[in-house]
Amino acid sequence: MKAARLHRYGRLDDHGPALVLEEVPDPRVQAPDDVVLRVAGAGVCRTDLHILEGMFQGIMRAHLPYIPGHENAGWVEEVGPAVRSVRKGDPVLVYPMVSDGVCLACRQGQEMHCEVGAFVGLDRDGGFAEYLLVKERNCIRLPEGLPPEEAAPFADAGLAAYHAVKRAVPLLGPGGLAVLLGFGGLGHLAYQMLRALCPARIAVVDRSEEARSWARELGADAVFPADPQTTPRLVEWSQGRGAQVVLDFVGEGGAPALGWSLLGRRGTYFVVGYGDPLTVPTMELVAMEKAIVGNLVGTYAELVELVHLAAEGKVRAKTVRYPLQEANQALTDLHHGRVRGRAVLVP
Amino acid sequence: MKAARLHRYGRLDDHGPALVLEEVPDPRVQAPDDVVLRVAGAGVCRTDLHILEGMFQGIMRAHLPYIPGHENAGWVEEVGPAVRSVRKGDPVLVYPMVSDGVCLACRQGQEMHCEVGAFVGLDRDGGFAEYLLVKERNCIRLPEGLPPEEAAPFADAGLAAYHAVKRAVPLLGPGGLAVLLGFGGLGHLAYQMLRALCPARIAVVDRSEEARSWARELGADAVFPADPQTTPRLVEWSQGRGAQVVLDFVGEGGAPALGWSLLGRRGTYFVVGYGDPLTVPTMELVAMEKAIVGNLVGTYAELVELVHLAAEGKVRAKTVRYPLQEANQALTDLHHGRVRGRAVLVP
Amino acid sequence: MKAARLHRYGRLDDHGPALVLEEVPDPRVQAPDDVVLRVAGAGVCRTDLHILEGMFQGIMRAHLPYIPGHENAGWVEEVGPAVRSVRKGDPVLVYPMVSDGVCLACRQGQEMHCEVGAFVGLDRDGGFAEYLLVKERNCIRLPEGLPPEEAAPFADAGLAAYHAVKRAVPLLGPGGLAVLLGFGGLGHLAYQMLRALCPARIAVVDRSEEARSWARELGADAVFPADPQTTPRLVEWSQGRGAQVVLDFVGEGGAPALGWSLLGRRGTYFVVGYGDPLTVPTMELVAMEKAIVGNLVGTYAELVELVHLAAEGKVRAKTVRYPLQEANQALTDLHHGRVRGRAVLVP
Amino acid sequence: MKAARLHRYGRLDDHGPALVLEEVPDPRVQAPDDVVLRVAGAGVCRTDLHILEGMFQGIMRAHLPYIPGHENAGWVEEVGPAVRSVRKGDPVLVYPMVSDGVCLACRQGQEMHCEVGAFVGLDRDGGFAEYLLVKERNCIRLPEGLPPEEAAPFADAGLAAYHAVKRAVPLLGPGGLAVLLGFGGLGHLAYQMLRALCPARIAVVDRSEEARSWARELGADAVFPADPQTTPRLVEWSQGRGAQVVLDFVGEGGAPALGWSLLGRRGTYFVVGYGDPLTVPTMELVAMEKAIVGNLVGTYAELVELVHLAAEGKVRAKTVRYPLQEANQALTDLHHGRVRGRAVLVP
Repeated sequence: MKAARLHRYGRLDDHGPALVLEEVPDPRVQAPDDVVLRVAGAGVCRTDLHILEGMFQGIMRAHLPYIPGHENAGWVEEVGPAVRSVRKGDPVLVYPMVSDGVCLACRQGQEMHCEVGAFVGLDRDGGFAEYLLVKERNCIRLPEGLPPEEAAPFADAGLAAYHAVKRAVPLLGPGGLAVLLGFGGLGHLAYQMLRALCPARIAVVDRSEEARSWARELGADAVFPADPQTTPRLVEWSQGRGAQVVLDFVGEGGAPALGWSLLGRRGTYFVVGYGDPLTVPTMELVAMEKAIVGNLVGTYAELVELVHLAAEGKVRAKTVRYPLQEANQALTDLHHGRVRGRAVLVP
Repeated sequence: MKAARLHRYGRLDDHGPALVLEEVPDPRVQAPDDVVLRVAGAGVCRTDLHILEGMFQGIMRAHLPYIPGHENAGWVEEVGPAVRSVRKGDPVLVYPMVSDGVCLACRQGQEMHCEVGAFVGLDRDGGFAEYLLVKERNCIRLPEGLPPEEAAPFADAGLAAYHAVKRAVPLLGPGGLAVLLGFGGLGHLAYQMLRALCPARIAVVDRSEEARSWARELGADAVFPADPQTTPRLVEWSQGRGAQVVLDFVGEGGAPALGWSLLGRRGTYFVVGYGDPLTVPTMELVAMEKAIVGNLVGTYAELVELVHLAAEGKVRAKTVRYPLQEANQALTDLHHGRVRGRAVLVP
Repeated sequence: MKAARLHRYGRLDDHGPALVLEEVPDPRVQAPDDVVLRVAGAGVCRTDLHILEGMFQGIMRAHLPYIPGHENAGWVEEVGPAVRSVRKGDPVLVYPMVSDGVCLACRQGQEMHCEVGAFVGLDRDGGFAEYLLVKERNCIRLPEGLPPEEAAPFADAGLAAYHAVKRAVPLLGPGGLAVLLGFGGLGHLAYQMLRALCPARIAVVDRSEEARSWARELGADAVFPADPQTTPRLVEWSQGRGAQVVLDFVGEGGAPALGWSLLGRRGTYFVVGYGDPLTVPTMELVAMEKAIVGNLVGTYAELVELVHLAAEGKVRAKTVRYPLQEANQALTDLHHGRVRGRAVLVP
Repeated sequence: MKAARLHRYGRLDDHGPALVLEEVPDPRVQAPDDVVLRVAGAGVCRTDLHILEGMFQGIMRAHLPYIPGHENAGWVEEVGPAVRSVRKGDPVLVYPMVSDGVCLACRQGQEMHCEVGAFVGLDRDGGFAEYLLVKERNCIRLPEGLPPEEAAPFADAGLAAYHAVKRAVPLLGPGGLAVLLGFGGLGHLAYQMLRALCPARIAVVDRSEEARSWARELGADAVFPADPQTTPRLVEWSQGRGAQVVLDFVGEGGAPALGWSLLGRRGTYFVVGYGDPLTVPTMELVAMEKAIVGNLVGTYAELVELVHLAAEGKVRAKTVRYPLQEANQALTDLHHGRVRGRAVLVP
């Protein structure tokens, strides 16, 4: 099959690393619970940029050369003999963690913390290819009306956003305020999830005018650029109260410091994007009873819920499709902030 | 001032009890935290029918003759010297429990369980009159655009519905199902609250065709009459899963037995309307892990949240206005199920 | 192997049904995740009495003759090729539900609600035998110092009690009161769990003087017989407040009506034992904001927690051991209330 | 009356600021809900050191000279005409925030966030004196057997510790691990609270050998000094899992960096002591799903719960008493880490 593989780490902007489009052997069912999918779409994520730059070297377990792509959907091509919940031809979304179902984290429904888990596209080959090998436990059958190439971004961008949103919602009653830092691949999904799950007002902060226009079109209650005036202006707009929740989908380039400053009394800062360190004065943390919560990708059950939201039209991912052979173009466009929504590679 | 007072208990349908419209002394500020309101509207509630029938005799602490009316809004007419949060002319909604703010229940924010609390319109004179005496702690200032005569039903019908809805919402994720039993004064408000607070589907059960049409107009996902076919049809419509939440705003005439039968595995039955006893088999309770939750009126903070929802247009009370002198007509219409929405007496 | 099998349903007291001790084929590993255990102990439960009487006929899926016993522990004898977390010779406790690990309930960590789950000893052969066939997902390896024949009662009596206790604990702060109805196999375990997990006072109600003495020895704050004076005396002892939590491990013979009457304002009634219907006035449910919660057996993760408590000596099961061939004697003793603690069959 | 007053800010170690013991007018009842207490004991807190150093200048609202002391208990001396819940001679503990009971935070039971609240001993005169003026809402009547001079440290040290402990307890099941940073005035109370409220193991970290001995005497599961080996040793001792909860009562001198490093996957860092900034890598925050929670003093209802624990002997404050005239000695001893437990000034 055709696959886009990474052969060496390096900085994107110094003439590499480029993924290499090459012919590799098709994956095959080996264990009784294996499932091989024909890939319909594979989302391209900021984490892929971090991978290429080597930020995950020593953490991820795939050996180079390997196939990235952790945000996948497709059609079932072949199943192992023990598989009962999906069959050939089914459209499925891929929960990205291959988990054992036996360890305590799995038994608590927290598969993303599986003690022996392997993340598709980091610890094993991913979906920047024509076929993908996963397990029955990774598959969520898609309902009619939600084609897999449209659903792919839910597998990671959507799931990470949904996981954070679900934890934030109990803090967002009527009259509350949520601020989204970053209105890109995750942010525009989180926006729609918040609208579906809570009655709070939503303000969006993004340094790109194009992203801000998009947020305005979708109906954001207020939209701000990311500059030195953002904090005083947002605090004033909220009548001095600040935000009950900040969801940070950026995590770098000054976002953590900005996000923290927007929080009001008893506010909680949800970190999803990462990169910069976060420094906070403990006296303010205590006096205002603020909190900070790190968010990884969500649970399988959360991904099922997200598919319900998508099937009912409550959340729609804006995608920009690239043919698989243009994988490097997609990565470069993402790096330069030129993708509006989520880039999806289509074989 | 003019007031509609109750002089004796009895069954509504046997030519009594009629409220007597009569002249009584105006209430006056006495304690430093007293507030006198000019009544703009006073909702008429099924509990008023229960009061007239004597169901609360021995429980309520008002002595006959007294003025019913526990769902009130108006304008501040006069305030005691210690009052700082409202002033003459302010439009306010009345939290119905006069609470001391000192007991443990109050300190936990559970004023409806105040150890020495007095319910306006049951334990002391209510709002079926031109003026009403309450405390500063009862007042919620209304924002512009939400006139008090429209807001009155939120003080009890709205608040009781909201209290139950807030407890139900954590059980109602994407793909979930809530069933409303009764689409009248409380039900139509609960419907809108659920839409604003959660993404679950909503089915409505009501024996009145008129109520069902109204539910359809508002966009209910499914509507059923209350008859022997309701349970099998609703269970089938939900693909065998039943409801995660049933909210019962009726509580009599067979509603509890019907409501219980609609609950699916791990489902919770929220009782708001009351009257009939509820009988459940403990084996089913255990095997299906069902739960039953009684709901009184909500907290002050919940009423503040509800005012936010109303001010943003997310919840609108349908009211049918009657002049104060037609109080008996309003009660009779309610008794006969002829009120679509909430009857409000306007002095 | 030797096994005690049920051949026909009937009332215990009418000379049957007796389990028949007979020779049957040893169970063998068939699927890759199968585990065969040498049974060390199998608890005898009130549910076994209900099974014998036919109360589960049409619900349970085992065909007669079959081997009861759903509360098991033993040593691993043989494992299938895919099993990694236990190996031959390991002492293990058996989580009683054979679940698929794939359905949504399993993915939420709620294996007792598995869509295709089979309960050991009800839907398939249980542990009243020398060997028992289960799955890797059923096994919890026991730490040193906790022999399997002592741990067996945790698998069901302990787990059901723990599941209810965990849900009750958030309601039981300092100054709170929990009432245990029934101080037998489950009750004496629940008592110790509550002591380990919360600071509330604990009152015990049991109609047997022997059970009450036992509760006093363990340090219960108050102990009451089950008679018409129980409610007024307990309410007085609690200075009029009643209980915040009642845990009913009996569920029949008048227990539900008694338990309900002990609940104070905002109290919750946890039903674990079952049999009698429960009838409650909806007006009281609403006015006092009471709640009722059905409790099945717990989750796998809860059983792991319980093993921690037992290993640290915080919860100890009192067991009465019977040789396997005296299975009928154990059942009869339980039926007549002559077992103090939990009867355990030892092959 | 005699009072110890602060006249100017400055660093403790440069010969000042010393409190001045002087004669000032007795406080008197003015408003109807005022209460004057005869002080029995006033705890001395690290926050008092911060106040003296000027860290709160511009935040606190008392004008110099003023009387510090925010941790008070005493006997009711005089009450205003509206006071009903306490009377002359009652022993009472003082909830430290003077709150209005009307604002939304108060109505939610979160009085420490009262919109117009004044903290006793910071925003108004405190208890380093013979008499103290507070409000009815500040008083908790003490039960017999809990003398006010012993209870005083619960009003702030105890309450702050309890507030954090209560939020931590749901994260501390059987098999869990809590680490206490600092075993002084707050730490030794938090230790006892955790023992009463949860079954988790408790490790203590303190740089003083004397504090560590004390922790060992009380039965801590493990005790560590604060040095470069602490993290690897504690992680090893916990079999690589780290802590589910770290409670930091120090907040300076490197404590935040150390505390953060002890957290395991999905662990939460509760900040109570403050001073140092806290810097965390967002990638670790996300990948491990860690969280950070700031904790101010608790709610009135929490202080009532704490009094229950103390009255039942489950939590005992170790106090070191100083006569009021030795206030400066107490502050100096605290500054130099020479107080074992809580210093309490006794007029």
